[in-house]
Formats: sequence, C-alpha cells, structure tokens
Amino acid sequence: MHTPSNGGAPQLGGLLNREVAVVTAGTSVLADALAEQAVPVEPVEWRPPSGPEGLAGDLAVVMGDRRRSGADAEAVGRLLAARPHLVDVRPADEVLDVEPGTFLHAGPPLTWDRASGPMRGALIGAALFEGLAGTPEDAERLLRTAPLAPCHQHGTVGPMAGVVSPSMWMFVVEDAESGGTAYCSLNEGLGKVLRYGAYGPEVIERLRWMAGSLGPALRDAVRAHGPVDLRSIMAQALHMGDELHNRNRAATSLFVRELAGDLAEASGGAEALRFAAGNDHFFLNLAMAAGKVGADAARDVPGSSLVVAMARNGTDFGIQTSGTGERWFTGPAGVPDGLYLGSYGPTDANPDIGDSTITETTGVGGFAMAAAPAIVRFIGGEVPDALAATQRMYEITLAEHPAFQVPILDFRGTPVGIDVTKVVRTGLLPVVNTGIAGRVAGTGQVGAGLVSPPAEVFTQALHALAEQATIAP
Amino acid sequence: MHTPSNGGAPQLGGLLNREVAVVTAGTSVLADALAEQAVPVEPVEWRPPSGPEGLAGDLAVVMGDRRRSGADAEAVGRLLAARPHLVDVRPADEVLDVEPGTFLHAGPPLTWDRASGPMRGALIGAALFEGLAGTPEDAERLLRTAPLAPCHQHGTVGPMAGVVSPSMWMFVVEDAESGGTAYCSLNEGLGKVLRYGAYGPEVIERLRWMAGSLGPALRDAVRAHGPVDLRSIMAQALHMGDELHNRNRAATSLFVRELAGDLAEASGGAEALRFAAGNDHFFLNLAMAAGKVGADAARDVPGSSLVVAMARNGTDFGIQTSGTGERWFTGPAGVPDGLYLGSYGPTDANPDIGDSTITETTGVGGFAMAAAPAIVRFIGGEVPDALAATQRMYEITLAEHPAFQVPILDFRGTPVGIDVTKVVRTGLLPVVNTGIAGRVAGTGQVGAGLVSPPAEVFTQALHALAEQATIAP
Repeated sequence: MHTPSNGGAPQLGGLLNREVAVVTAGTSVLADALAEQAVPVEPVEWRPPSGPEGLAGDLAVVMGDRRRSGADAEAVGRLLAARPHLVDVRPADEVLDVEPGTFLHAGPPLTWDRASGPMRGALIGAALFEGLAGTPEDAERLLRTAPLAPCHQHGTVGPMAGVVSPSMWMFVVEDAESGGTAYCSLNEGLGKVLRYGAYGPEVIERLRWMAGSLGPALRDAVRAHGPVDLRSIMAQALHMGDELHNRNRAATSLFVRELAGDLAEASGGAEALRFAAGNDHFFLNLAMAAGKVGADAARDVPGSSLVVAMARNGTDFGIQTSGTGERWFTGPAGVPDGLYLGSYGPTDANPDIGDSTITETTGVGGFAMAAAPAIVRFIGGEVPDALAATQRMYEITLAEHPAFQVPILDFRGTPVGIDVTKVVRTGLLPVVNTGIAGRVAGTGQVGAGLVSPPAEVFTQALHALAEQATIAP
Repeated sequence: MHTPSNGGAPQLGGLLNREVAVVTAGTSVLADALAEQAVPVEPVEWRPPSGPEGLAGDLAVVMGDRRRSGADAEAVGRLLAARPHLVDVRPADEVLDVEPGTFLHAGPPLTWDRASGPMRGALIGAALFEGLAGTPEDAERLLRTAPLAPCHQHGTVGPMAGVVSPSMWMFVVEDAESGGTAYCSLNEGLGKVLRYGAYGPEVIERLRWMAGSLGPALRDAVRAHGPVDLRSIMAQALHMGDELHNRNRAATSLFVRELAGDLAEASGGAEALRFAAGNDHFFLNLAMAAGKVGADAARDVPGSSLVVAMARNGTDFGIQTSGTGERWFTGPAGVPDGLYLGSYGPTDANPDIGDSTITETTGVGGFAMAAAPAIVRFIGGEVPDALAATQRMYEITLAEHPAFQVPILDFRGTPVGIDVTKVVRTGLLPVVNTGIAGRVAGTGQVGAGLVSPPAEVFTQALHALAEQATIAP
C-alpha cells in the first residue's frame, strides 16, 4: 500500500506516525532492547562465510597477494581475447602427444578401480574399437593396467566419459590470438554412444564410420573452407537461444550452414551433412575445444586465482587455477538435479562426468542460461530460474564477455572467469548445465540437469594459492 | 513507501488516516464536487474511441452480428490448424493461373501511374528478365499498358515489390490440414535485388541463374526429401530468436540444415547451398508462403471480422477480412520508423511495401518480437520495446498460437488473428516489422523498422462488415 504522494512533508509525517518495524542482524543486543519495548523485530540470521579452519586466513593471504589484481587481469584478459578457429580435422595419433596404449579420459586423473560404470564402458569400447581386445572381458583385463591420462593434460577435452584413443578423429582448434591449439573428438550423436559408456557393436561400427568417412569429409571441407570462426558462431548462437552446453541447436545449425557448400563437394559429404544435421549437439565438441584453447591461454599466470579448468571423471570433480599450474583440486562429483528421460530416475544416474564444464569455465553453458530460456524444457525449472542463474554468476566472475551477450539482459556480456576468492567469499558455486549418464555401463544418457562442483575444490585451491602468495612487505 | 504490515486493522487505519487522493474520469460532476472540498483530484482524459461518423454504429452492428463469435472461431481455428509444408519448387508459369503478359505485384491492386519507384524498378527488371523489352525505356513503355495483378489474388505472396513473372521459380507450399496451396518466389539475397527495385545487369543475371540452377536444385532436393514441415521450423525458430519477418537467421539455418544432405546430392546443390546459406533472409519467403496458405484457409467465413491479408504495394496499405471476400480496404502506406543503413535517412525511404505483412497477419513478425530481442539491433529501440510490442498485440487478436511460442513470456503462444472490431475498439494498430526500400528505383534496401497500417483500413472494413451483418431478431 502506497502513501499518497503530496510532497516531502506529508511523507515524513507518514513515516513518523506509522508503526515502526525493525530488521536486525548480527549481535542481539539491539533486538533484545527493542523487544523489551514491545517493538516488532524481524531478526535475520547472518554470519560470515563458514568453512574449514584456516579458510579465513587463506582468503586474507590470497586477497593480500600483491600480484593478484594484475595477475587476474592478465589471465582473464587472455581468456577474453581468445579467437578460436576450427582449422583442421585429424586423427588423434597424428596430433596428440600420447604414448601408444594410453587412453585419454575426461576429468582429473583416474584409475580403473575408481572408475564409474560409464567411464569403464567407454574405455572398453575404445579398446574394442582400436582392436586391442576382442571381447569386453579381454578389454577389462587390458584396462586394469593400461595407462590412463586426463584429456586436459594433452590440450584436449572430451564430453561425458571423454575417452580418446589414437584412431579417433579430432577437431583441431587454434586461438588466432595466442597461437595455442586444442582438440576435441567428434560428437557421435545421441542414444547408445561411447561417451555415455555404451560399447555394443553399433557403437563400434559408428566409430569406424566416423574415422573412415565423417572425419575425412570434415577435414576436406574445413581445408577447402579455411579456418571457421567459432567465436562468431558462438556469439550468434547465444543470440539464438543456445547456452552452448546443453543446448547447441543454433550453433549446430550455423556450423552446418557454414560448411554445407564445402561438405557438399567433399567425398562422403552428403552423408556427413546428414549426420551432423541430425544431431543438435554436434557443435558441443567445437564449443568445448574453443573453450579449452581460451582457458589454456589463461594458464600459468603466477598469483592468479582464475579457474582455468573444471572437469569431472564420473567419480571426482576437479578444478585447476591459473596460478597453480597442472595441479588438480578434487572432491566427489555430485549427481545432477534435473529431468529424466522415459522411465529413468535419480537412482539410475551416474555422478557428474565430462570435460564439457569447460563451457562454464569460459562464460557459456550454465553461465549463459539467460540466453537460452527454452533450456528449462530440457533440464527443468522455470524461465526466471534461467535468468537468475546467469545473474548469480556475475558475483563469482572477473569479467563480462565482450563477444558473448545475453539479448534479454540488454546485451550484457555473459559472466566469465571464475575467481576462486569470489566463490569462497560469496559461498556461491558455479552452476553447471549438463547431461546425465546412466550409472550402469552401456545405458547411455538418462537425463539432463544442473549440478555444482563440491565446495571443497575451491577451498583447496585457495589454500594452494595462499601457500605460494607473495605478500607485500 | 510501504506501511508496515501488521495485520488488517492498522492498514485500514492507515488508509483512513492518510490524505485522500482521487482519480476521476468522464463527466466532471464528481471531480468538481471534490475540488470544492479541497480534495486533490487527478482528472484523466478519457472518451470512447473516436472515428468517422457512423463508426460507433458500425461497431455496434458488427458486434451484434449473431454469426460473429462462431464465425471468428471458425476462421481463426482454420488459421491455427494450418500445417504448411514445402512440397515442391516450380516455375511460376507452371503453377500460377496468370494470363501471359500479366505481372504480379505486392499489395492491393495498383496501376503503373500510381506505382512507386521500387515497384516500377522491379516491374522493369521483370520485363527485362522475361525478354519482353531490351532496355529499361522499352520496358516502361510496355508496362504503361501491361496488366498488373496482386499476388494475393493468385494464391501468392511476394516480399517488397513482390513482382512475379512467368519464368521465376516459386516455392509451392501446401497446408496438410486444409489441402490449400500457396506460392512465393525465391529470395534473391541482399544488396541490389529486384524486390527492392533494382534492375541492373547483375540483378537480371542472378534471376537467370536462380531460374536455371537454384530453382531446379531446390526442386530436386525437396522432391528427394519429401514435404518439409515449415510449421515445425518456424516454431523452433521462435525459440531461437527469430520473429520470422525481419529476422530469419535461425529459420534459414534450420532449413539449410534440413535440406543439406539432399541438396548435396542434387545437381548444382553445392552452389545452391552456398547461396541459401549466405542469406539470413532466405527463409522469409517460406514463412510468407506458410502464412499465406494458413490465412487463405481462414477466408470466406461469413460474419467473421478476422483479418486474412495485410499487404502494401508501396503506395497503398490494404487489408482483407474473412467476412468480406476479395475486397480490399486501403489507405496510404506509411514510412517505417527505424534504423537506416550507411548514410541513408528517412528522406530516402519509400512508403511501406510488400506482402511480407502476411507474417504479422498470421501471428509472427512484429507480433512475435518478444521472441527476438536481438531484432532491436536491426530496427532500433530497446529490448523492453520488443516485449511490449508483442504484449500489446494480445489486445487486438483472437487467439494465442498453439505452436508458435515466446520462451521469455513463459512459452505463451504468440498473439494471432487480428480482429477488426478489437483494433477499432482499442485504437491499437497492428505492429509491422519491415525492411525499408529506397524511394528511387534501383536503390535497394535503405533500412529496417516498424510501421503500422493506416487506421482507416480498419474502419472501412468495419463498415463493410456492418453492411452485411445479420442482426438477431
């Protein structure tokens, strides 16, 4: 109810004449005194951010690091300046520096004995695809001792299980600004696919066709076309309802449209066009490689608390920061909260898995949900939730993206560059928009939803940053 | 300023204790009485909708037509039920029932002497393209006496000048619900193009290539693919930031993606893919034919005041209603208000032109602006204006579209089915989102913006509806 507006005096009179209501926070001395005078009091629970012992000390040390502000500006500046281009498509063994027999996987380092169902399934499938084993049982035996390495360690990212073996073909993405290169495998489509842990004959057959036909057709088309500007496609797609993690319909359409003429002239091009066009997520792997090459450009700035990797192996959720090199800070991967396909439910869900969180690391995905209100039909929730998710992320990021905009927020740049200190200070965790894999190897996708990293990865990272901080004299 | 909420009694007390403010409308007896008591009065100017003499009477008669509610429900029901599919691509002389030598044009009927610059330019270009004249001067001589007919009269729509001659190739769109068919020419791209009145050698050469190569390639691809579901593409595009009149980027991308495999296998397909992919507006002509086939299904319901055509010929803006057959109600076309390209300004603008207002007639275009916030970068204004434009249109329409939704309005259906009586009663005119042609023949596009029909077309239509109304005994 509004008081009538009749200039200043009557309003002031209204204030003084009306009953007093008081909101109090913190120590109760004031609230108690008011209550004794029969004044209605609305006490608010508030305390400084909680955390393990030493956290406040770590925060003070890192915040006081005299390199911090310059280092963060340098690191996030490189991330924002990245101009990723798809420059080639080539087999993994031609471009990745990986020992023969090693399998790459999503997330932080992992051993077979700790691997989840879909991760084991994907590794089995890769061993079958490479002809290293004739049966799933043989493959398991092999894999118990085979060397495993994170994709991230080799300039690579992989969705879901993210398993990469030498014969798979990779998108080759270069950052025209830094000159860096990153790789991602080709998207297999939906249904029974390796990245969700399926390894049946149709999965292996599709991988063979992708290596024998799709990869070469894409290579020929990309070489005929010249570098494909991924930043431009991604910027447009955010104006077209994608957030570039769980929704890539616009980006996939723009990419197919961009390469269509050259693919039409490539051997196997019509089939490649139908395959890419038949999968709304085809672009995801390109968005991931684009994110990786930008995030890698931001690495190794001493004193920077910028997050340069967030990744999950289906067991652990890990992050890396610019100031702490190759070191992973890990905690248990959570189970996403979202919508399930068909008769699946939360008990069918594997914990969070995949390198696709590189999208959130670089200002899209869950951070750009406000650009993709239609995503709520896929992951649950209401349109205002999508807007609110993006708006919250401005509180834990260092910048607003100069090229990636949200039209409905008046073209505001997406929140980009997660700062460990801001996460710890606010207690707000990054929002991740993800697919949900079935817990049992071979199940495939069971749903899609939202998840957050475990808070402890940020407090661990903060501690590591504190240990190497340079405090002003 | 809010009063503290302490239950009902104190609030009521607050109301009674505070100063009284009164808002009055209509006759001044109450306001005068209050003013004499020194009570502040806020008089609001209000009067019944104004208009030419007899308007209130026409409105009463049409509103009282006992057929009206049933007729409008029938007409708009047919419009909403339309399921337009692209089923073929063929030369105009094979599909249109037009006398040889007749030129079709956009908008209501027109004669050469009243035709604007871009309309004359496009007619000259069509005569040159058909080989009926060797020079623009010869063409002008021919056109002074050549028969002209509106596209709309032949189940056809054309963007801007909308000139159709026998050798041009047409999209053939069928409504799977009503069985009706509508046609639209192929989009030529931007720059110097016939539809904006350009007729130089490059324009004629492009038209020849479109007839000799693009049309046949599209025909082969569509026949190989089978009917292309345009309603589905349009519904998706509205989730992807298009409004389907001035912004067709998503729909064009989805269409290219859908046909890419079949075009890749068609003769001339790679070139056709590059041409379609190179033009964000390629889909506009399909959205128009889709709108036309739905609007035509809603025609000829006696007593219905539903608008089934809005179209401009560059001189006049005309509408047709379901209840009044082929009769046009016309008034002078306005000049759109928007953004201009390069150094062009309002003095370079031709009055409003084109059949593309079939999009607004069928619940997209300006009516779906809330789905396309990025459109404000092209036509001017701010994002909230785009939301407000759509929200206003609910006041003058009969329905919300069951398939065309606006995600940011919580997936509300777009406002669809303009009702002449609602326009007259509210005084709100349909909002049209359009390109702006240069006033001088051959200039091309000079900008894009918003425009409204002249109010008189609705009062004329109302009068005609009143004349044939059937009043309950």
